[in-house]
Amino acid sequence: MKMLAFTVRNHRLVAGKKILPKLRPRWALVRVRLAGICNTDVEILRGYHSFRGTPGHEFVGEVADVRGVSAAQKKKWIGRRVAGEINVTCSAYEYSPVCHFCRRGLKTHCARRTVFGILSHDGAFAEYLALPLENLHGVPDSVSDEQAVFVEPLAAACEILEQVNVKRFRTAAVLGDGKLAQLIARVLRTAVPRVVMFGKHEKKLALARRAGVETKKVRGDAGDLKRVGETFPLLVEATGSPTGLALAQHMTEVGSRCGPFSKAIALLRSGKIDPGPLITRTFPIAEAQAAIQFAQKPGVMKVLLKTQGAKFI
Amino acid sequence: MKMLAFTVRNHRLVAGKKILPKLRPRWALVRVRLAGICNTDVEILRGYHSFRGTPGHEFVGEVADVRGVSAAQKKKWIGRRVAGEINVTCSAYEYSPVCHFCRRGLKTHCARRTVFGILSHDGAFAEYLALPLENLHGVPDSVSDEQAVFVEPLAAACEILEQVNVKRFRTAAVLGDGKLAQLIARVLRTAVPRVVMFGKHEKKLALARRAGVETKKVRGDAGDLKRVGETFPLLVEATGSPTGLALAQHMTEVGSRCGPFSKAIALLRSGKIDPGPLITRTFPIAEAQAAIQFAQKPGVMKVLLKTQGAKFI
Repeated sequence: MKMLAFTVRNHRLVAGKKILPKLRPRWALVRVRLAGICNTDVEILRGYHSFRGTPGHEFVGEVADVRGVSAAQKKKWIGRRVAGEINVTCSAYEYSPVCHFCRRGLKTHCARRTVFGILSHDGAFAEYLALPLENLHGVPDSVSDEQAVFVEPLAAACEILEQVNVKRFRTAAVLGDGKLAQLIARVLRTAVPRVVMFGKHEKKLALARRAGVETKKVRGDAGDLKRVGETFPLLVEATGSPTGLALAQHMTEVGSRCGPFSKAIALLRSGKIDPGPLITRTFPIAEAQAAIQFAQKPGVMKVLLKTQGAKFI
Repeated sequence: MKMLAFTVRNHRLVAGKKILPKLRPRWALVRVRLAGICNTDVEILRGYHSFRGTPGHEFVGEVADVRGVSAAQKKKWIGRRVAGEINVTCSAYEYSPVCHFCRRGLKTHCARRTVFGILSHDGAFAEYLALPLENLHGVPDSVSDEQAVFVEPLAAACEILEQVNVKRFRTAAVLGDGKLAQLIARVLRTAVPRVVMFGKHEKKLALARRAGVETKKVRGDAGDLKRVGETFPLLVEATGSPTGLALAQHMTEVGSRCGPFSKAIALLRSGKIDPGPLITRTFPIAEAQAAIQFAQKPGVMKVLLKTQGAKFI
């Protein structure tokens, strides 16, 4: 596949001068120590997002400079090892008023956002990068560079914990054995006693087993459902393939089914909801067949069947 | 479309004798007063679920008999107007041990379940039906038969309130103007100040407007996205059509994006997760192009780029 070329920015060597990313107030210049290659980077180089510039959004680096802060702040930040969030939002540019997403606290959806290494913002495959201070997270000394470079994708996996109370489950499945699936399985394993990974690659599954994850080899074909032979109360699909999604649906124990009757009755009783106007027509039950035909006509809403008035057997 | 025929069971007239549904202990015989026709019934009569028997799962009726309870219980139930939950589970049959779903409180997913009017259990298009007492909900006097017959589908709409804290939202959208969409819009409207329904049928939209729902006509084609011209923080897709789902994705403001960095860092620091073994190879950053090629090879997990050791600019 044809891929776009990009140039690694060795900022020290451009025309023999230091040409470094420009800093806005409260932005930091970060020297990259280690950067990770994500599948998104590969997609970007294939043309995804029509990105021009330096890709790369997973990194650990150290702060080399900061602008527009107090001397104390500067001292606190310079030399510090950091990982960085990738969405650059209204507040980073000191926009006023802020956009409707930022105003509601949904900063990662900022209407003006640029995305580090992905959307209109040079990324981490470089000697130096620039990010707002508010995007940076200090990395504790006990966490190595080789670990810290995983903070960004690991945070994405941790998002599952924000959305689902996984502690309720005794067992969970992960479909896929790639990089993100591996992190997801590890994150689930911190809270769920039994995590089973389904993947096609023995070597990748072996990596997961070393992290306490149960594994099962599948082939990505129609026989997998039989091979799996089990359903799960919690399942994370991380294959990225349509067949994976179809398999996931069959392997998942519970969706929602029906709803709370007492709440429905309370709503009717309170008068907050009156479904009466939705009734198009009521038939005697002896005319059920005709009623069902009628129910299928365009524009018809609810059709009811009424029994005779006799109250007792 | 060819549809299966079914016979309305007029239990009083079978061979001139009362042939009524058989009651198990703690089951009730219910005389149907009013039954609603749901799209599922139409699907069932077209062959869905290979159902044989009497369809119908929306009803209001009155209890005519109860078996295996005390005289006081019997007195309490007989004559009472009721709506009924449709999943009949382990406890209704006094199975011991109960299945693994029932044991976990997921009764609507019971492994042995039959479903009233849908799966191996005669339904409500009849003079009489049988359901376990535990499935029945008394209907208050202030709620009419014409309202109570909506309890089952309204409960399904209320399930949204169980899954999403809708009160967080100031505005919400419903795609579709059919029966379920109408109930969903009304349920949302009890908690969300502005609910907008998008549908193709002016008369159906008019019904929603009477219930305080804002409406907008769409055509179900590619031009709809422009017609809508707005995105929503909360959207319920209730068209049942693939084009509706595609439109819904474009109309929804926020999915998840990125995750919590501080949680990821805490997991690394605690040693609960060590992603180190996922690193396949580290390249010098000057060899980034080669690294990205390498990252795409089968079996390769994380590839890193390392800058030179120079610490200062």
